[in-house]
Amino acid sequence: MDRRIKTILRAGITDELVTVRGWIRTRRDTGSFSFLEVNDGSSLANIQVIADKTLENYDREIIRLSAGCSVIVTGLLQKSPAKGQDVELNAESVEVLGWADPDTYPLQKKRHSLEFLRTISHLRPRTNALGAVTRVRSRLSFAINTFFQEREFVQVHTPVITTSDCEGAGEMFQVHATGEKDKNNKPFFGSQAGLTVSGQLQAEVYALALGQVYTFGPTFRAENSNTSRHLAEFWMLEPEMAFCDLACNMKLATDLLKYVLRDVLENCSEDLALFNSFIEKGLLQKLQDVVEKDFVHITYSAAVEKLSSLKDIFDFPVQWGIDLQSEHERYLTEKVYKCPVIVTDYPAGIKPFYMRLSDDGKTVAAMDILVPGIGELVGGSQREERLDVLTRRMVEAGIDIKEYDWYLDLRRYGTVPHAGFGLGFERLVQFVTGMSNIREAIPFPRTPGFAPC
Amino acid sequence: MDRRIKTILRAGITDELVTVRGWIRTRRDTGSFSFLEVNDGSSLANIQVIADKTLENYDREIIRLSAGCSVIVTGLLQKSPAKGQDVELNAESVEVLGWADPDTYPLQKKRHSLEFLRTISHLRPRTNALGAVTRVRSRLSFAINTFFQEREFVQVHTPVITTSDCEGAGEMFQVHATGEKDKNNKPFFGSQAGLTVSGQLQAEVYALALGQVYTFGPTFRAENSNTSRHLAEFWMLEPEMAFCDLACNMKLATDLLKYVLRDVLENCSEDLALFNSFIEKGLLQKLQDVVEKDFVHITYSAAVEKLSSLKDIFDFPVQWGIDLQSEHERYLTEKVYKCPVIVTDYPAGIKPFYMRLSDDGKTVAAMDILVPGIGELVGGSQREERLDVLTRRMVEAGIDIKEYDWYLDLRRYGTVPHAGFGLGFERLVQFVTGMSNIREAIPFPRTPGFAPC
Repeated sequence: MDRRIKTILRAGITDELVTVRGWIRTRRDTGSFSFLEVNDGSSLANIQVIADKTLENYDREIIRLSAGCSVIVTGLLQKSPAKGQDVELNAESVEVLGWADPDTYPLQKKRHSLEFLRTISHLRPRTNALGAVTRVRSRLSFAINTFFQEREFVQVHTPVITTSDCEGAGEMFQVHATGEKDKNNKPFFGSQAGLTVSGQLQAEVYALALGQVYTFGPTFRAENSNTSRHLAEFWMLEPEMAFCDLACNMKLATDLLKYVLRDVLENCSEDLALFNSFIEKGLLQKLQDVVEKDFVHITYSAAVEKLSSLKDIFDFPVQWGIDLQSEHERYLTEKVYKCPVIVTDYPAGIKPFYMRLSDDGKTVAAMDILVPGIGELVGGSQREERLDVLTRRMVEAGIDIKEYDWYLDLRRYGTVPHAGFGLGFERLVQFVTGMSNIREAIPFPRTPGFAPC
Repeated sequence: MDRRIKTILRAGITDELVTVRGWIRTRRDTGSFSFLEVNDGSSLANIQVIADKTLENYDREIIRLSAGCSVIVTGLLQKSPAKGQDVELNAESVEVLGWADPDTYPLQKKRHSLEFLRTISHLRPRTNALGAVTRVRSRLSFAINTFFQEREFVQVHTPVITTSDCEGAGEMFQVHATGEKDKNNKPFFGSQAGLTVSGQLQAEVYALALGQVYTFGPTFRAENSNTSRHLAEFWMLEPEMAFCDLACNMKLATDLLKYVLRDVLENCSEDLALFNSFIEKGLLQKLQDVVEKDFVHITYSAAVEKLSSLKDIFDFPVQWGIDLQSEHERYLTEKVYKCPVIVTDYPAGIKPFYMRLSDDGKTVAAMDILVPGIGELVGGSQREERLDVLTRRMVEAGIDIKEYDWYLDLRRYGTVPHAGFGLGFERLVQFVTGMSNIREAIPFPRTPGFAPC
C-alpha cells in the first residue's frame, strides 16, 4: 500500500509491501547494490532504499539517480541492520519519474548558506532546514487556531484592503486598479485604499458584537528597511476581547505562548532537534523554560530605572519617556531576567491613540512581551473605551475623527472595557526555530527590491 | 463565577450564582420587574434576566435600558417557568457600562434589510443573522484547517504581494509605496508588484518539496463587477498534492466538502436553524444530502450533450468548446441531478496553461464541482508536469516564459504528477448559510466604490 515515510518511520512498520513516492537525497553505490536516501517531505527523516543490481533498470537509470530526482519505490520494509535507523526498504521496483541534472540543479549534497537559498526561494523548501521551518510554521499556525477555538473565540477575517490606517503611521502600501484613473478619475474603491497595517480596529468591531475574536492574516509595512527583522508582508495574530482588562490580556498572551510552544515541542520534536543541533544550541531548553517558568512582569518605569542605572552598555541611553529599543528589550529578557518579560504601563506619548489612558494621566494600559533572542514578540493594550477620552486622544494625535466615526460608534453604543494584542507570527517562528533572519521564517519573503515568485 | 451565555444554556446550569457580561437586546416591563434579554455573542440565544424593581438602580438606570446597552448582570440561575427557555437569571445587580441612545442607534428592535446592514458594516455583526454568519464562517475555517492537519498536509502562507499572475488574466490590483517613484524611479519591490489572484503556483513549489500542502488566505480581483457573486477581496483555499491525479483530486475535494459540512451541522446547529427558518427553507436538508449522497461525475462533453438538447432555456446556447455559464452549471446541479456535480475534462482552449493536457490533445484534466444555489464552488485540475508540453502551452498562451523560469524549474528538477484545486471560501459560506449575496459572507466586503472601515 501507499505509505508516507513519516508514518513508516514513526510506527516502525516492517514486513509490509509498500509504495513510497518521493525525491532522492543521496545515492551511494556498493559492489552489488545502491543505497538511495528518499524523502517525501512528510518528515525530516529519509527512508533508506536498497536497490539491487538485479533490478531491470539498475544500469540504465538507478545508477544515474542524483539529488532531486523523483521516484516511486515499491518494496518490502524490513528491520535495518544499520545504525541510526530501524527500517529500510528493499526495493522490488524503482520507477524514475523526473530527473534533476546534477550539472544545473542547485541543491547538490553540500551545505548551502541561508543567504544563497533565499535566491532560490522556489527550491529552498526542498532542503532539510527550510522544510523543517515550513512544517513547524504550519504546526504553530494550527496550534494558534486550536487554542482560540478551544476557548470559543470566533475567527474574523479582517480585510487586507482598507481605507483606515491603524497606527496613524502612514507607512501603507497603496492599491490601484489598472486604468482606474482613466475612466472617471475616481479610485477603484471610491477613496484611496491601502494594505492593512493591522486588523485591530476591525477586530474591535467584532469583539464588541461577539465577545472574543481573533484575526490572523497578512499585514503590511511599506518601510524601506532592509534588516534581518523587517518584512514588507508578514502574518500577524490579533485577538481582541470584550470585558477584558490589561491583566486578562497578559494572562491570555501568556497562556497562548505556553500552549503553542508545548504543542510544537510535542508535535515537531524531530524538526526542533535539527534546529537545536545546527541553528541554535540550547533551543529546546529555551522553549521548555518558557513553557514551565513564570513570566516576569515589570512596569515600564521599573524597567527604565533598572536600565538607566547601567552605564556604557547601550547605544541609546535610557530615560523615562523614550521608546525602548531592541537592545534594551533584549538586555532585560536575556541578561537581567533570562526569561520572558512583560513590560506594562508605557508613557502615553509613545503609544497609539487607542490605548487606554491610566488614572495617572501619563501612562497607558499597554503591555509588551519580550523574549530572548527576539525582543518584542507581543504588543498589546487595554483599549480606550471612553468616548470623550478617545476623541481627545485622537484629536491630539492629529487624526481626522470624521474618518473614524465608525470606530467612535463602538464607544457611542454599548461600549465596554476591552483589550487585545498583536503577535508577529514570523517572530514566533524565529523564536521556535532559532532562525536569526526573519526571511527564513516565511515561505516567500517580501522586502525592498525583492518579491520573486 | 463568570460564565458565557452559551455555556449556561447548553449545560442548563441552575442554582448557581453567576456573572454575565453582554448587551441588551430588548427590555420588557411588568408591574414589579423588567425582563431583559441579554446577548454576549457566544451564541444566537439570549439569556433572560429578571430585574426586580427593588434593585437600587432600577428607576435610575434599568428602566432606561434599550437595545445595544452593555451590562454586567450578577444573579442566581434558576429554572424558568416560561416556554422556550430552560434557565433564567434572577438579577442581584445590573451594572450599566455603556448606553446606546435609542434616538440614534441604528439597530432598534425590528428587522433590517441586509442591504441596509451593509451600510453599517461596523455594527451589523451585532444582529442575529450576521452574528450567526460570523460564527459559522469561523467554524468552517477551523474545520478546513483540521481536515488538512488530520491528513498531515502542511499549511503554506503564500504571499499576497506578487510579481506573478497565475491566471494570466491581468485583472490584478497594483501595489505602490508612497513616493517610490520620487527616489530613483524604481518600484518598491524592484519590479511592478500586484495583489495575488491565486496562491497556486507558489503552493506547487511547496507541494513538490513537502508532498501535501494547502494555502488558505485572501486573494484579489480588480474586476469592476458590481454583482452579488463578486468581491474584490475574498478568501480562497488551495490544496496542492504531489503524486496525485485527477481522480485523487476529486476524491479529496469530495471528502473535504462532506467533512466540513458534517462539522458545521454538528457544531453550529443553532445558527443553521436560524438560516433554515429565515434565509433558506430546506437548508438543513440540502446540507445533510451533500454529506450523505454521492456526488455525480460527468465529463464536460456529456454535460454539453445534455444541455444542448434543451431548447429555449438558456440565455447562452451551449455547444462544445464554450465555457459553461452560471445558468448552465446551476441547471445541471439544481434541475438535472439535484446534488453536487463534478464536471471534468474541459476543452483545453478555455482553461489556463497549467492544466494537464490529456492524450486526446483537446481536453485537459480539469474538474469543477457545482452545487445547488451557487454553481461552481470548486475548480481544480491535475497540473501539467511535462516540461515540454508546459512550455509549449505557455508560449501558445502568450506568456513570457522567462518570467516563469522558476515555475519551469519545478518540472526541470524532480517533476512528478500533481494536482490541486481552489475553493472560494465565501461561496462555501453562502452555501452553508443560504445568503444569496456574497457581501453577507465576509466581515468587511470590498467591492467597486466600497471599502469602508
